[in-house]
Amino acid sequence: MSVETIAYRGGNIVIIDQTRLPGEYVVLQIGTLDALCEAIRMLRVRGAPAIGVAAAYGFRLAAEAFVAAGGKDADALRQHLFQTGQALAATRPTARNLFGAVEHMAQVASTPAATAADLLAHVVRAADAVHARDHDLCQAIATHGAELLPQRARVLTHCNAGALATGGIGTALGVVYEAVRQGKSIEVFADETRPLLQGARLTAWELQQAGIPVTLLVDNAAATLLSSGRIDCVVVGADRIARNGDTANKIGTLGVAIAAARCGVPFYVAAPSTTFDLSLDDGTEIPIEERAATEVTSGFGPRTAPEGVPVFNPAFDVTPADLIAAIIHEGGVVRPPFAVTIPESLAALAASLAR
Amino acid sequence: MSVETIAYRGGNIVIIDQTRLPGEYVVLQIGTLDALCEAIRMLRVRGAPAIGVAAAYGFRLAAEAFVAAGGKDADALRQHLFQTGQALAATRPTARNLFGAVEHMAQVASTPAATAADLLAHVVRAADAVHARDHDLCQAIATHGAELLPQRARVLTHCNAGALATGGIGTALGVVYEAVRQGKSIEVFADETRPLLQGARLTAWELQQAGIPVTLLVDNAAATLLSSGRIDCVVVGADRIARNGDTANKIGTLGVAIAAARCGVPFYVAAPSTTFDLSLDDGTEIPIEERAATEVTSGFGPRTAPEGVPVFNPAFDVTPADLIAAIIHEGGVVRPPFAVTIPESLAALAASLAR
Repeated sequence: MSVETIAYRGGNIVIIDQTRLPGEYVVLQIGTLDALCEAIRMLRVRGAPAIGVAAAYGFRLAAEAFVAAGGKDADALRQHLFQTGQALAATRPTARNLFGAVEHMAQVASTPAATAADLLAHVVRAADAVHARDHDLCQAIATHGAELLPQRARVLTHCNAGALATGGIGTALGVVYEAVRQGKSIEVFADETRPLLQGARLTAWELQQAGIPVTLLVDNAAATLLSSGRIDCVVVGADRIARNGDTANKIGTLGVAIAAARCGVPFYVAAPSTTFDLSLDDGTEIPIEERAATEVTSGFGPRTAPEGVPVFNPAFDVTPADLIAAIIHEGGVVRPPFAVTIPESLAALAASLAR
Repeated sequence: MSVETIAYRGGNIVIIDQTRLPGEYVVLQIGTLDALCEAIRMLRVRGAPAIGVAAAYGFRLAAEAFVAAGGKDADALRQHLFQTGQALAATRPTARNLFGAVEHMAQVASTPAATAADLLAHVVRAADAVHARDHDLCQAIATHGAELLPQRARVLTHCNAGALATGGIGTALGVVYEAVRQGKSIEVFADETRPLLQGARLTAWELQQAGIPVTLLVDNAAATLLSSGRIDCVVVGADRIARNGDTANKIGTLGVAIAAARCGVPFYVAAPSTTFDLSLDDGTEIPIEERAATEVTSGFGPRTAPEGVPVFNPAFDVTPADLIAAIIHEGGVVRPPFAVTIPESLAALAASLAR
């Protein structure tokens, strides 16, 4: 995949406006914190890892603007960056990566520095490192995950956990890209993913760009596809994973996982360690974003529901750990019992990084 | 419900154009067989029971036109009606009611008659009786089904099995209407039902018209709603039910049934005896209609998927009998083992009608 989902260039955060795909390929230059927050809230940039990278770049943007405007005091910049972090953390509630990036960058902003320019240098380095790390995590996940795919595999995925969702080749789709690179014959089935159609608009598009066979279906057709025996495994991304393996991901993931379990099809989650939240015992503690009714009632322009009808529109659901065959992170493939193996594998990963 | 989904007046079949709801309430006067076949294929009139009624009225339309054009020979009319039946049977493949109505009306057309006018009189009577019967079946189903709903019930439904799908008050929604009439407090959650949004456009609209609380959700949100404990039962309609209870219904029904089973929520099917097909041992024999890719890629006007992407778009799926808690037909509530109870209950129904 050669899609550059997010970059920092010339004092701007540069993103593809994902609300316009696949009809239009529009690149946005984001030069203010307000514009960045709007872009995250409106899903112009989306995907848990990508909004983590966007948040880190938000700190860089704020720091550069502060110094460019003549700001010299390190403490004043530090306070400004803490406020920046608060604004970013208020954009969307579910993805762990967003909060992880904000916490990390706030820590960087706490670094002792003589001048604002010195602190800026720290922030720039750290933000670039968050992006570079996300890129590397995707490749590591892909390498581990590709081993789970047979030589010929038909993979069902939900939403978009591809290059467009990350600072690299993607998580779930990264696994597919790497398997294809290794010479495996992979065919992907993409749920369209109502209400915002990330599957139809983004996954189908990026796989088509990469020359990988992809078939689109409405979310309603996933269960019959799974029960037909035409799917070898499901691979999805994640927005937050609790200590016990319960996984928040795009609304509809739970239904796919339940159907896959009934049909005996293995269900895999691919996500970087930055998606795990070990402070949560289980998925009931994950905050679930509810979004506007208009996404459901008139998401495509014309209104498709009667005026005034109440709408239930959660953006995510939680798949219980017992439905998940394996979770792939950059440290390897983690199998049940997740309450044991997740903390163990993340501790081993941290230890290997500390060496 | 005061919605008149289908009627025969002034030499025309009169239907609400359901593709225009809820934005526009357009009544179509259908005066030719071609127009009727187009209306069935395009889902201007839809719902298994309603297209059965439409097919019966198609015979009446053809017979009236034949006699109005000066046709006098009963045999010629008979041949014309057999051809009419073939055209109607070729419109859509899954709903049993369509074929049942065509077979019944072809049998009526076989009645000995001295003149075309005599045969016409038989056909008119029989077509009107098909409609009147469907009306009565809905009420009987509603009465039996309402007993399954507790005094306060939150009901999840998929697609539209309401007044708009039948010649009466509906099947699944008929159960709701009757429970409300009995003074029960019922709240409905309606899956939007991609690709054609019968839940958003039709179910939400007709329940709103009837003053019954209804909340709309994308199909993807059904599993999390079921797992939240906020749903007491699922009630859906059916397009064809095999001898063992396997049930074809709108695509997505299977996923709802699997999720309901996992969450311990009873899953009910409401359908008249005309929906059963005892010639089929199980659901694998039910023909499943595949519809155009454009329903998925540009169903709302603007294109929402990349050009050229292959699409898997079955209009129906089959819910295995083991996921169904009960099937409600006009003879009563049928419980597993369906392979025994369905043939028994339908035989008892036939015997009671013969008395």
